[in-house]
Amino acid sequence: MTVMLGQNQYGKAENRVVRIVRDGATHHIKDLNVSVSLSGDMDEVHHSGSNAHVLPTDTTKNTVFAFAKEHGIDSAEQFGIHLARHFVTSQEPIHRARIRIEEYAWERIAASDPDTEKKHSFVRSGQEVRLTQVSYDGERWEVVSGLKDLTVLNSTDSEFWGYVKDKYTTLPETHDRILATEVSGRWRFNWSDDAREMPDWEESYRETRKHLLQAFAETYSLSLQQTMYQMGTRIIERRDEIDEVRFSLPNKHHFLVDLEPFGLKNDNEVYFAADRPYGLIEATILRDGCEARIPVDLTNL
Amino acid sequence: MTVMLGQNQYGKAENRVVRIVRDGATHHIKDLNVSVSLSGDMDEVHHSGSNAHVLPTDTTKNTVFAFAKEHGIDSAEQFGIHLARHFVTSQEPIHRARIRIEEYAWERIAASDPDTEKKHSFVRSGQEVRLTQVSYDGERWEVVSGLKDLTVLNSTDSEFWGYVKDKYTTLPETHDRILATEVSGRWRFNWSDDAREMPDWEESYRETRKHLLQAFAETYSLSLQQTMYQMGTRIIERRDEIDEVRFSLPNKHHFLVDLEPFGLKNDNEVYFAADRPYGLIEATILRDGCEARIPVDLTNL
Amino acid sequence: MTVMLGQNQYGKAENRVVRIVRDGATHHIKDLNVSVSLSGDMDEVHHSGSNAHVLPTDTTKNTVFAFAKEHGIDSAEQFGIHLARHFVTSQEPIHRARIRIEEYAWERIAASDPDTEKKHSFVRSGQEVRLTQVSYDGERWEVVSGLKDLTVLNSTDSEFWGYVKDKYTTLPETHDRILATEVSGRWRFNWSDDAREMPDWEESYRETRKHLLQAFAETYSLSLQQTMYQMGTRIIERRDEIDEVRFSLPNKHHFLVDLEPFGLKNDNEVYFAADRPYGLIEATILRDGCEARIPVDLTNL
Amino acid sequence: MTVMLGQNQYGKAENRVVRIVRDGATHHIKDLNVSVSLSGDMDEVHHSGSNAHVLPTDTTKNTVFAFAKEHGIDSAEQFGIHLARHFVTSQEPIHRARIRIEEYAWERIAASDPDTEKKHSFVRSGQEVRLTQVSYDGERWEVVSGLKDLTVLNSTDSEFWGYVKDKYTTLPETHDRILATEVSGRWRFNWSDDAREMPDWEESYRETRKHLLQAFAETYSLSLQQTMYQMGTRIIERRDEIDEVRFSLPNKHHFLVDLEPFGLKNDNEVYFAADRPYGLIEATILRDGCEARIPVDLTNL
Repeated sequence: MTVMLGQNQYGKAENRVVRIVRDGATHHIKDLNVSVSLSGDMDEVHHSGSNAHVLPTDTTKNTVFAFAKEHGIDSAEQFGIHLARHFVTSQEPIHRARIRIEEYAWERIAASDPDTEKKHSFVRSGQEVRLTQVSYDGERWEVVSGLKDLTVLNSTDSEFWGYVKDKYTTLPETHDRILATEVSGRWRFNWSDDAREMPDWEESYRETRKHLLQAFAETYSLSLQQTMYQMGTRIIERRDEIDEVRFSLPNKHHFLVDLEPFGLKNDNEVYFAADRPYGLIEATILRDGCEARIPVDLTNL
Repeated sequence: MTVMLGQNQYGKAENRVVRIVRDGATHHIKDLNVSVSLSGDMDEVHHSGSNAHVLPTDTTKNTVFAFAKEHGIDSAEQFGIHLARHFVTSQEPIHRARIRIEEYAWERIAASDPDTEKKHSFVRSGQEVRLTQVSYDGERWEVVSGLKDLTVLNSTDSEFWGYVKDKYTTLPETHDRILATEVSGRWRFNWSDDAREMPDWEESYRETRKHLLQAFAETYSLSLQQTMYQMGTRIIERRDEIDEVRFSLPNKHHFLVDLEPFGLKNDNEVYFAADRPYGLIEATILRDGCEARIPVDLTNL
Repeated sequence: MTVMLGQNQYGKAENRVVRIVRDGATHHIKDLNVSVSLSGDMDEVHHSGSNAHVLPTDTTKNTVFAFAKEHGIDSAEQFGIHLARHFVTSQEPIHRARIRIEEYAWERIAASDPDTEKKHSFVRSGQEVRLTQVSYDGERWEVVSGLKDLTVLNSTDSEFWGYVKDKYTTLPETHDRILATEVSGRWRFNWSDDAREMPDWEESYRETRKHLLQAFAETYSLSLQQTMYQMGTRIIERRDEIDEVRFSLPNKHHFLVDLEPFGLKNDNEVYFAADRPYGLIEATILRDGCEARIPVDLTNL
Repeated sequence: MTVMLGQNQYGKAENRVVRIVRDGATHHIKDLNVSVSLSGDMDEVHHSGSNAHVLPTDTTKNTVFAFAKEHGIDSAEQFGIHLARHFVTSQEPIHRARIRIEEYAWERIAASDPDTEKKHSFVRSGQEVRLTQVSYDGERWEVVSGLKDLTVLNSTDSEFWGYVKDKYTTLPETHDRILATEVSGRWRFNWSDDAREMPDWEESYRETRKHLLQAFAETYSLSLQQTMYQMGTRIIERRDEIDEVRFSLPNKHHFLVDLEPFGLKNDNEVYFAADRPYGLIEATILRDGCEARIPVDLTNL
């Protein structure tokens, strides 16, 4: 036999679960997209099609919805921990579980009169999608959280010059440009052991997001790499629970439009927002002495 | 000859223009996606390929960017009016212009210390996309504004019962359900004449959006049609400048998950958010005595 | 009362139904996305929320799946006719039904040895999505079919010159360019009466698609308008069952890349395929003496 | 200092290059989407914003277009090899280049009379997107090719039973179901050394795709894992140039619709094609003794 089975995993992806908690007339909402991925002693299902070790993906879906009732959803991270622990500890052939969750945020709809605000009415906040991934092998936990689709822009305080010029270089240098990106970021927690106390996942997310935004706004930028490094540094320095950050930042180019053919001067006023191609700037920033574990491509957490 | 040319139009679609205004260190941003569509005396280009009457779509693109400098962008509506007037009055063969604009909103990034807030740093507000369409035939204006992608949800105060049952009906009645939709709405202004004063386009948008949201939140709903009608009525009653509203509201189904097989009771707590199929509820609501002019499908403004 | 209800409609959108027919070991597949839209005597559900005239959208979904069994799916058009007739004739308050269908094509997977080809194995053909819309008011039928997402390209035999130049015109003329578009087209059948024999819907689609492609390939083009008009003319001339055609053709720009800065000559060899903005060219072409009924925007059939 | 820079890379993503070759009146087309990613001695640009080692992403874009002229595009793989070699050997600070390419296929438009076929007229084949990734560190090559978006379906010869049942299991067993998936696959070539002769990249793609499809069609399936393993095995056994295959296969569920409430029997005829959630089945299949190098998530090549 000349063929081998390598790494393999399976599960149900994109279970869209919404959990409502009623506190009298005041409702609370958690809106998640949960993907389960399991691996373990699964050679036989690949070789012969025997499903004797296979918990159906349909069952993993049912478990997501049942756990939303049994455990509630305090945070995406905590919910992922409940699920991962369940699959690894309850099924002998399953040795590792990875739970990925997207979370969509909702805000309350403001009433004309605050006294009559309907505490069950929400409008979805479109800014970013919150992310987490929980992995468990029966002993150790790895939690990587983050966000995507958070679009930010500085309309000044960005330059780009002093770069290498080769025979294919035509780009003019600039000392005042728009810097814009759609942040995709992940951060890895150093919590990995049931014996240690967990971070406050909700507070950690709020604060990390805040530092990320402020570092973007407050960095006078000579390159998107520099801005990105400041965003990661700010998080590592301010959040003890995080050891590693990975960013993937498309440079959303805003080109100054040449208005001279029309007898007009464009004094950093009118820009063309381009789609493709785009620069793509990526890096890991980590606490000194820590191991880099977030994959190079963020999609492969 | 047995073939005739009917209605035809052409132009450049999706010109992505960003306009920055610098008021000292405080910057303001307008972010638009502008589509130009022109029609008029254009038989020849279809029959023989002669472009003698054709202003190139590339020129219409250039005009969008040049006008962002020459006229600025006070509002999407005002910008569309500048463009439409230009094409119809400057080109003899062009008899009608239709300018469609999408606008993306940005908020300032909050600083840790308000005194040091960077007034050139923005985060894109993902909630809804604002829309306008300006049409001009050289005499009369038609302005239809609106929004899309505004997702709202009531976690209670919605029922659905008392409907027709035929041989294909299996749906159980409910007296407490989630009601959620992604609002796509358009509203037509009664301003149509240069001799009349224009509405305040920015204030009109803010207020119309507010009424729409509040009517959604405050209507105890027996059907999505009823909620939609209240949303339109609220706008017509409160905004004198608007004569007609059209909504297209997908019923974003949130199905209560059956947890009984797992020995659990689901007391309006855990829902499955479904993608397809979805109910689709559409209507025009208009001021008594006014003509309905917004097309039945919102895409065909 | 100062507010009126105008045109309104409702139904279940995007019912994804797959129908398999087994002819011994040879299977046949029809893969549709069916959207139902009903209108009629529906004031009360908007005003008071009474559902006494409302057949639930869930029931219309069930009907789609039940009819796939009861009537089979000979063609998307025929299936839409069964559905539209049912809703209008079986429900007194429903006066009009509109059924929209997308159809996805599948091809058989070729075997190494034709004798062992698995006649139940398919690969989805990604070229275009076939479309139809059937409308019925209890007396007359309107059937509009078409396609979208069919991308075509001529790498020569296209010119663009002799156009209007105004102060915003910078585009150079060209006598050899790429002409590419993603065809969105609709054609209206003159069949409207149960007393007349229906067209052969499957043959009509195959032939119309063929004429459309051949006219695109065989027209030496001085403008995309000219090519579009030839595509419509060819269909009207060759297909007696069709009275009207509407196209919406984005001009998918392929810009010749300027390689001179690198000491290279670009002899119509290397192009940049742009996304946005794009020209958008639209027209109706119809049989002499016929009424234009396909809406100006194809989305509003 | 408590913060470190880890792995980082940068470049221009999604350069859309179209190359036409004219062989008399017969034209040939290559349509690629090329993403460049470079890494090396880049600490300074992150720390201080100095761009002294940075070849601008704009230059890498220019290089893609210039190389389409200078080297032509024999195959996506060969084109990626030209680019990767250039960046690593011409720029001292750049130690590693990774070129990712998507390729879109085109077919000729058939004429009514084969003698008059326009050999410059194409229709885009929508079936799959062909992929390749070329990595080079100055010494060794790694080429991973593949495809995505290839949707396949068997309407019988698929069963699913004999699986684990826990307290959350409700799925009934089935002995005849539809098996459908949208293939995302990658395969790694064992060519890694300039001293060895390269594979014929075009023939390799054609044959690998064929084996993959045939294995899908010809496997009587007890689980999607079994089918997937057969697809990988077939490739490893038949293509000596390939050492490793990785698949990510969403189980595109087609649920048999319950028609009993309507008095109808559904004898494997009418299915609901669901969107979310979906099973997701992934594995690596490799030649005995070879190292697994394709990342667990295919997006992270």
